[in-house]
Amino acid sequence: MSVTLHYFDGYGRAEGIRMILHGLGIEFTDNRYNQETFAAFSATGVSETSQVPCLEIDGKSLVESRAIERYLLVRGGVTTSGNYEGYVNDSTISFLDDVRLTMAKFIYVDNNIAGLVEWMKNELPWYLNKLSARLNEHNLFVNDKPQHADWAVFEFVYDVFLREKNAEKSKPLLEAHAPKLITFAENFKNNNAGLASYLATRPECEF
Amino acid sequence: MSVTLHYFDGYGRAEGIRMILHGLGIEFTDNRYNQETFAAFSATGVSETSQVPCLEIDGKSLVESRAIERYLLVRGGVTTSGNYEGYVNDSTISFLDDVRLTMAKFIYVDNNIAGLVEWMKNELPWYLNKLSARLNEHNLFVNDKPQHADWAVFEFVYDVFLREKNAEKSKPLLEAHAPKLITFAENFKNNNAGLASYLATRPECEF
Repeated sequence: MSVTLHYFDGYGRAEGIRMILHGLGIEFTDNRYNQETFAAFSATGVSETSQVPCLEIDGKSLVESRAIERYLLVRGGVTTSGNYEGYVNDSTISFLDDVRLTMAKFIYVDNNIAGLVEWMKNELPWYLNKLSARLNEHNLFVNDKPQHADWAVFEFVYDVFLREKNAEKSKPLLEAHAPKLITFAENFKNNNAGLASYLATRPECEF
Repeated sequence: MSVTLHYFDGYGRAEGIRMILHGLGIEFTDNRYNQETFAAFSATGVSETSQVPCLEIDGKSLVESRAIERYLLVRGGVTTSGNYEGYVNDSTISFLDDVRLTMAKFIYVDNNIAGLVEWMKNELPWYLNKLSARLNEHNLFVNDKPQHADWAVFEFVYDVFLREKNAEKSKPLLEAHAPKLITFAENFKNNNAGLASYLATRPECEF
């Protein structure tokens, strides 16, 4: 089986997909474009919407990051078993995506990193606190096994606050407002060898 | 069973939930707030995130519109049966939400209706065309029975282009670029008596 991920040379909306692929032990080609090579890829029609991330897998070509993530997880046997669990899963991701969207706007639309830093200091703690309050007795978001919401929150918490590049500046925010999210992320990583191994060796990106 | 929806007096992110509740024949109290009464509701703590839409149902209090919609549909027996079907469902909604988000920004953030009209004329047809191309031989987005994606696209197409208030200005855009979406929406409404009856009598809102 040939699996290919198409995205820019950055984390962005593809990093959650990369983490899941590594976590599930699925080998893949990680095609990373710059603006120029992206234009060439976009013109091929491989991506239904001309957009990335785009994942070629199972003879199909998939778009939209959260839909791709869920496809991979369900394919790997990760599914919520009940309607309310499904709701907790979905709503945690939607809530997180509101946060991600606000942060992405500072970075990619407004090119305003100073504004992002201010927003993170003043507004983000409220969201972190709400997310943290959802962690259950298993230190997960949905039931006792990692679900899509756990993967999504892990990617966010790890890349924004915990990875080496950001930890000195950003980890104190978590320590002050949502320390449970640190324990969650550490447990999550330590319980997945494929993920941990990827994170130890992946290319460093700004965003 | 007592079911209560909390939202502002508008369509916005609640109208898809209202349509599904009516479509499934679930009676509910439709609490519609203005800025002042919303502040009072928000302070009650009924909404986990202090945000709306918030739906009280089954002894629980739910937030995040797409998660609430999916909860209601699964509860009503509407579920995709396979992984690829699930992907088509999820990615159609994500793609649509990119569009809704751009439009909502013109309305609620920038308060720039002239800009919205220009964007709809110049940029929206590309998205409509991509959506339309996903309609299958059953004139639906996923398989042969309405799924979450069908509900989501219906709400969008009906409220933006087809309802009486908007039809004169906006329906020609669909006729020119994605006429299949008109047929889809008409069939969808005609096949759901509860939905059709609601749409015939619901309060008129701007957005």
